[in-house]
Amino acid sequence: MTVNTVIKDYNEVISSRRSVRVYDPSVKISREEMTEILEEATLAPSSVNLQPWRFLVIDSPEGKATLEELAPGNLHQVKTSSAVIAVFGDMNAFDNADDIMSSAVERGFLPQEVKEQIMANYTDLFGRISAGAFREMIVIDCGLVSMQLMLSARAHGYDTNPIGGYDKSRIAEAFGMDKERYVPVMLISIGKAAKEARKTTRLPIDRVAQWK
Amino acid sequence: MTVNTVIKDYNEVISSRRSVRVYDPSVKISREEMTEILEEATLAPSSVNLQPWRFLVIDSPEGKATLEELAPGNLHQVKTSSAVIAVFGDMNAFDNADDIMSSAVERGFLPQEVKEQIMANYTDLFGRISAGAFREMIVIDCGLVSMQLMLSARAHGYDTNPIGGYDKSRIAEAFGMDKERYVPVMLISIGKAAKEARKTTRLPIDRVAQWK
Repeated sequence: MTVNTVIKDYNEVISSRRSVRVYDPSVKISREEMTEILEEATLAPSSVNLQPWRFLVIDSPEGKATLEELAPGNLHQVKTSSAVIAVFGDMNAFDNADDIMSSAVERGFLPQEVKEQIMANYTDLFGRISAGAFREMIVIDCGLVSMQLMLSARAHGYDTNPIGGYDKSRIAEAFGMDKERYVPVMLISIGKAAKEARKTTRLPIDRVAQWK
Repeated sequence: MTVNTVIKDYNEVISSRRSVRVYDPSVKISREEMTEILEEATLAPSSVNLQPWRFLVIDSPEGKATLEELAPGNLHQVKTSSAVIAVFGDMNAFDNADDIMSSAVERGFLPQEVKEQIMANYTDLFGRISAGAFREMIVIDCGLVSMQLMLSARAHGYDTNPIGGYDKSRIAEAFGMDKERYVPVMLISIGKAAKEARKTTRLPIDRVAQWK
């Protein structure tokens, strides 16, 4: 686990995260540090640990130029951020199941015979699940990892903004990805805030929760 | 912000979170502390801050008995956990938009005239969006809050497990909720681990990320 964090306190991380839309364009996050942030993010759980998230880290001028056309309402943050991470769910994520479980066997986390039984169960389960249900499952898992990505970025001293307003119908193909396979979930801009974000309020818990 | 946390370090929170399926049945989380955990969780961002998440905190014997029928594959964690939180997305979440923005105006975070302009834009936008796109939007937002909920629970010293395997077609009605309005996203069991969770591995970042 990296120790390259500048905000160590959990409550400070969640309390100081705000949706930032204007970044200092001179701040560049190295690919090494971005990899650390992604490693921390992907400690998130996912359905049967399939890890269906795929990240396109758009940090080059060419990549950003392509993205600008797809997110005309969010030009300023695309331009000024260090990177924009496009999060996709992989409809073929089950193809990795054997690799993932084999690596758990190798590490001594899972007995081989248990792995074989689980793999048989999952092969049956994912052979029967509808494409719509699988899609919803991976979209939810991508929501989980996206939150942990924004928090991990904050722990590294960076700011983020989750963006839903972009052309989801064109983004995969625009970056040479198979649009049937990769389901667009959100964009996350990341960088160092140049302008303080507007504070927001939250509904009281009795408006969003009930006990049973 | 609460200070009722036992794990303060962000990296420790994300590194020690594991999917726990067997809890100490003697540990009960008070509704007061659960409210704190939910307050921390709901600091998560959501599309235009609509906060479309709704939580049904199932902690009574009657509530759990109802849930057991809907999650027969996860009986043990339903029985032994302190609570199971059913997370739903509210298809009517936009009904709260005016209240949410008015409270930001009251707190001095948003000028009244800006609020009126934004509200007009959103009313137009959400009047045109398809039910399917709105549903996907709120499901993603519920993924974000669910991750922050699991981390906040961990910071409070509790363990969790996100559960996708339950009868999503029946859960709303089983608890007297409108099934057209409330979209089931996941269950999250929460309590104190009685048995260490199996460790899992993650794909290397070069298998899930590319740079552009």
